[in-house]
Amino acid sequence: MAGSTLGTIFKISTWGESHGKAIGVVIDGCPAGLSLDESDIQPFLNRRKPGQSIYSTPRKEDDAVEILSGTFEGKTTGTPISMIVYNKTQQSRDYSEIASYYRPGHADYTFDAKYGFRDYRGGGRSSGRETTARVAAGAVAVKILNQLGITFTTYTRSIGTIEIDDARFNEKEIFNNKLYMPDADAAEKAGEYIIQMTKEHDSVGGCVEAVIKGVPSGLGDTVFEKLDANLAKAVMSIGAVKCIEIGDGSKVSKMAGSMDNDGFMMQEEHVVKRTNHAGGILGGMSDGSDIILRASFKATPSILKTQNTVNKNNEDIEISIKGRHDPVIVPRAVVVVEAMSAITILDALLLNMTATLDGITRFYGK
Amino acid sequence: MAGSTLGTIFKISTWGESHGKAIGVVIDGCPAGLSLDESDIQPFLNRRKPGQSIYSTPRKEDDAVEILSGTFEGKTTGTPISMIVYNKTQQSRDYSEIASYYRPGHADYTFDAKYGFRDYRGGGRSSGRETTARVAAGAVAVKILNQLGITFTTYTRSIGTIEIDDARFNEKEIFNNKLYMPDADAAEKAGEYIIQMTKEHDSVGGCVEAVIKGVPSGLGDTVFEKLDANLAKAVMSIGAVKCIEIGDGSKVSKMAGSMDNDGFMMQEEHVVKRTNHAGGILGGMSDGSDIILRASFKATPSILKTQNTVNKNNEDIEISIKGRHDPVIVPRAVVVVEAMSAITILDALLLNMTATLDGITRFYGK
Amino acid sequence: MAGSTLGTIFKISTWGESHGKAIGVVIDGCPAGLSLDESDIQPFLNRRKPGQSIYSTPRKEDDAVEILSGTFEGKTTGTPISMIVYNKTQQSRDYSEIASYYRPGHADYTFDAKYGFRDYRGGGRSSGRETTARVAAGAVAVKILNQLGITFTTYTRSIGTIEIDDARFNEKEIFNNKLYMPDADAAEKAGEYIIQMTKEHDSVGGCVEAVIKGVPSGLGDTVFEKLDANLAKAVMSIGAVKCIEIGDGSKVSKMAGSMDNDGFMMQEEHVVKRTNHAGGILGGMSDGSDIILRASFKATPSILKTQNTVNKNNEDIEISIKGRHDPVIVPRAVVVVEAMSAITILDALLLNMTATLDGITRFYGK
Amino acid sequence: MAGSTLGTIFKISTWGESHGKAIGVVIDGCPAGLSLDESDIQPFLNRRKPGQSIYSTPRKEDDAVEILSGTFEGKTTGTPISMIVYNKTQQSRDYSEIASYYRPGHADYTFDAKYGFRDYRGGGRSSGRETTARVAAGAVAVKILNQLGITFTTYTRSIGTIEIDDARFNEKEIFNNKLYMPDADAAEKAGEYIIQMTKEHDSVGGCVEAVIKGVPSGLGDTVFEKLDANLAKAVMSIGAVKCIEIGDGSKVSKMAGSMDNDGFMMQEEHVVKRTNHAGGILGGMSDGSDIILRASFKATPSILKTQNTVNKNNEDIEISIKGRHDPVIVPRAVVVVEAMSAITILDALLLNMTATLDGITRFYGK
Repeated sequence: MAGSTLGTIFKISTWGESHGKAIGVVIDGCPAGLSLDESDIQPFLNRRKPGQSIYSTPRKEDDAVEILSGTFEGKTTGTPISMIVYNKTQQSRDYSEIASYYRPGHADYTFDAKYGFRDYRGGGRSSGRETTARVAAGAVAVKILNQLGITFTTYTRSIGTIEIDDARFNEKEIFNNKLYMPDADAAEKAGEYIIQMTKEHDSVGGCVEAVIKGVPSGLGDTVFEKLDANLAKAVMSIGAVKCIEIGDGSKVSKMAGSMDNDGFMMQEEHVVKRTNHAGGILGGMSDGSDIILRASFKATPSILKTQNTVNKNNEDIEISIKGRHDPVIVPRAVVVVEAMSAITILDALLLNMTATLDGITRFYGK
Repeated sequence: MAGSTLGTIFKISTWGESHGKAIGVVIDGCPAGLSLDESDIQPFLNRRKPGQSIYSTPRKEDDAVEILSGTFEGKTTGTPISMIVYNKTQQSRDYSEIASYYRPGHADYTFDAKYGFRDYRGGGRSSGRETTARVAAGAVAVKILNQLGITFTTYTRSIGTIEIDDARFNEKEIFNNKLYMPDADAAEKAGEYIIQMTKEHDSVGGCVEAVIKGVPSGLGDTVFEKLDANLAKAVMSIGAVKCIEIGDGSKVSKMAGSMDNDGFMMQEEHVVKRTNHAGGILGGMSDGSDIILRASFKATPSILKTQNTVNKNNEDIEISIKGRHDPVIVPRAVVVVEAMSAITILDALLLNMTATLDGITRFYGK
Repeated sequence: MAGSTLGTIFKISTWGESHGKAIGVVIDGCPAGLSLDESDIQPFLNRRKPGQSIYSTPRKEDDAVEILSGTFEGKTTGTPISMIVYNKTQQSRDYSEIASYYRPGHADYTFDAKYGFRDYRGGGRSSGRETTARVAAGAVAVKILNQLGITFTTYTRSIGTIEIDDARFNEKEIFNNKLYMPDADAAEKAGEYIIQMTKEHDSVGGCVEAVIKGVPSGLGDTVFEKLDANLAKAVMSIGAVKCIEIGDGSKVSKMAGSMDNDGFMMQEEHVVKRTNHAGGILGGMSDGSDIILRASFKATPSILKTQNTVNKNNEDIEISIKGRHDPVIVPRAVVVVEAMSAITILDALLLNMTATLDGITRFYGK
Repeated sequence: MAGSTLGTIFKISTWGESHGKAIGVVIDGCPAGLSLDESDIQPFLNRRKPGQSIYSTPRKEDDAVEILSGTFEGKTTGTPISMIVYNKTQQSRDYSEIASYYRPGHADYTFDAKYGFRDYRGGGRSSGRETTARVAAGAVAVKILNQLGITFTTYTRSIGTIEIDDARFNEKEIFNNKLYMPDADAAEKAGEYIIQMTKEHDSVGGCVEAVIKGVPSGLGDTVFEKLDANLAKAVMSIGAVKCIEIGDGSKVSKMAGSMDNDGFMMQEEHVVKRTNHAGGILGGMSDGSDIILRASFKATPSILKTQNTVNKNNEDIEISIKGRHDPVIVPRAVVVVEAMSAITILDALLLNMTATLDGITRFYGK
């Protein structure tokens, strides 16, 4: 089954294993005429690159991206854009231990159950390293959306029990700390929390939030292709995400209609919402206000702490997982959430062009 | 854009407006040889039919389904199954008021923004009535899955601030109360809560939970076609859902790895998980334990309470929405969540047959 | 598997069996704002309706179409358009004979091989009657394309060995004879030929040609989504078609490059082709000249003449097929070829809107 | 728009330009457990490699393929298989002339019309070089199909006016001559014909035929996903193909039903067809006999002979195209037709596994 391809018009196919030769993505359906070279992509990859801080795996990867096709004289041609990132540190360490048992919280067991065996080196295809390819594609989507006035503010909302204080929200702070939190205070506490948990041989989860501004009204559709539905799929497809929320999210279940409804009003001759409990999406379609989504990530499953599992001889055993693991993946996942959101919104924006006969006749000059 | 079609192998296309002639669905890709007639579908439709209790709209609809194609001598033939439910009460009431403004919390504004105008009668295509068609398709999916040993327990987890007590969970109670809650006590309190809120001219949200047993390991895939990602899309595509959670859901962001990981152990010569924080899905693939998901529904947006909005003359106005509205849609949405889950899991189960060369050669007897 | 759904943006799903209750189609993705009612569809259905002449089956069907959804106040709303045609003459005749053996040239055997059994009444889903639904959808596509200046001239090019003489081509003649031939002389001879073959208890094939004018340059794409490739699929998916040709078609294999290439020249400040051997498509994309395609249909497989086959007891037998069969299906297939071409071109036209960043920014007014 | 992705389960995405860094393909959906390394792919690429004979372009390319992902310890893992072929001879020649006008018979004009500009180096994405990637994917499909007993015999049926004599058909001869003709005599004459045409500064077309044995009955479907419809799309998507035929092909339009129908008979307790006019497909589904298809290729459009065209200053000019061009592409296209057929049949074979409930329950052991 084809499980690594996403999108209808802006379609991406990612490939590659954690410890294979390379990781890559093919974007099929990128519009022609976009100025594009590696310098547009690399900054996004750098945001999720390992080894940036004490909070992430010390694995060293340049994550230098190369564009292999789809551009000519600095512009996209409308043909598939193939991008590749070589894996530098697939050093020949001994994988015999990791191959011999199922790591709790990982895909080892389910991969074997489905496919009969697995590339156990570093998690193979189920490694977070796969998201490198998503981020490369997302960088292209973000660049296009930026040119249409759509911008992304994505950050760590919480690490474990430490959450940002909305009163102290400071967008500029996001890139000032290694946790990508828009609240310096929270970032400091979260850092201490991670260090404490690492000392306890444990790991930490958290929550990523994205605020997307400038999305025109009407993206998405009424039934299955709701914009929130596709955002939910895109973001839930990131490993370790167990919850996706739009706007007020899970809180709506406890709210009365009068609290949750966003009234409309006129503002400079435009219809706008007075509040944004809906998170920018009404009836599956963008409503012109900020799109707000949150994803909850579980803690890194690889921990030093002793865990129970079974080995390949079907024996109950105890394990302690050593190696280069992130104590928390949330900071590196921020740009992945941004990438998946951008890919989804761009696809919706392209599909939306065909919504009305009036738009079509205008486009074709009839 | 094609927004009413879902699925790869078991593909459904729904159609119809709230106050049009009928609502329907075409299932393209249902396997041949399934015993099927209307009596398999009707009980599911009855679970979401309006007018069943004081907690739902008094609109009267039989919701009698008719199968128009795809079966022969009581069995599916492998060809598209077309099902239709006629709308009985599209009475010619006066829609001029509802046509004249944007109802807060509804798709009125976004529909106009996208398509230029809208069928304003009862919400048109954006009405919850559209889910009739989903439930009809879901009934077919559930019947197939049941034959493969897969069963669904779906219920109301909470209404407003009233949540079931897991210690009092009683599956048999689900069909004993009109709110489909597996806890008689909670159901009673929730009923009182709804009545109270109705008196205040307000409305109520809630949370639906599904527990799916017997799913074989390995359904779903590693990257974009993760089973949880597709469940997220399918369930988030139900109107009013603002949050979807798998297993421990949003709580994972606060849990340490050692709390969240499910250790493995041997049980009767099978590998099983000791706990089920993951909600039955690891790395995007089913792991053989129960799949657990939750959807948070916002309160019905149509309320008698005064709200602010704008009219078609671009004037700020105050409105009070009268008419036949559910004070809470959660109980009627229970079977919709079940239907969407079943459709998703069946599609994953069919796709999974092609995962290994060994399975393929076995199938073709080579 | 989902075999009755076609298209990416303008997506159609057909359903229904020859002798079931009805035949229908759901169009998911029709743009909003198109004036549409049954009177737009019916003339197309009338062109393929049975019982119009001595050359077609005497089965009587009104083929009256009803639109069940997707329009409001006479215009499409952007939501799925469901159309239904009830089967009038599913009279309870005796099907025991036809059920007892495999008709040569029909899908009886392969249907059983795939699905295990079949709806044998009149061919079930494999009946030419299924094309009713395609024509209904095609009528909508043609109406949209007409508004964009794209027109279809579709006709019978040959019946058996009788072919039209291009020197006598007269577009107006097409609707003057029951065979839809643009050459009165050829039509007369072809009519005699059919009568002769019918007397011999045999049947006749032929060729349908479509000329599509006004298609803007650039529809289709470079690799798999070539416009000719999608036309080939769409037209080859009509039962009885065994060959599809674009432009000079099979003759190109014998032509030198200098004979087949169409030189370019300037004409009223536009680049145009001097000739049109290519049939309006270069490198998979429309080139602004007429699109020309031809489909070769085999003779109706149901014939009175004695044939060999096997029965359900696995015995070799001889049969003579009685009943209401077309001696030739080509004239009724003309509008089916037109419908499938229109559906394909419309989908390509909608997809094409997303080809360039310049077009996208222009569309969104940035 | 996404134009370089094909297939539902076995999904391929090709990328790369003629004179870019590389050409490649990602196969998403290859079943796990297939033994695979580069030596399985290379022989197929060698069959379409340039520079093999005087009948093909002297451009020198090793076309050495490298597998970048999707295998582990010599077997496919079920994850995407990324394959790359570097372009060796993208020498920095002067492309200013070719950039300055539209070559007749090429995609230059339509590419500009659609995308606004083009990578003019060697045809860019519209070059036949793109088929390298298709052949690499096709080699994987063929290997899987071979293990299921399905084999391909693909060859040149005709070059210009020189056609093989079926009475002299010799399968072993196919690989004995550089034209891949199964008739040594015809091959010799065809070779002389090509040389003659080359002397006249002209080029030659031809016809490729594929015979596919061992396909089980029931692949494909009744309506749009007919096996012949998908073969038509796949093969018509190869550049220069203007006609695709199944079985008797275009001849059926002149044949009577009694001549064209294939009677059934019992043979060793199996139902078989007495003849194979249908080319192995009935009602869109494989019937167990050989699948036979033919594709007609136009002559190479790049010729030395003087042609008329326009330049970028919108002036009518005369040109003579120099450079490394194949006088005939048919021999190199043989393996491309085989590849596209194999990809299509494999996808149909995988989809077919979900056709019946009986097959599904058997598969899951219920």
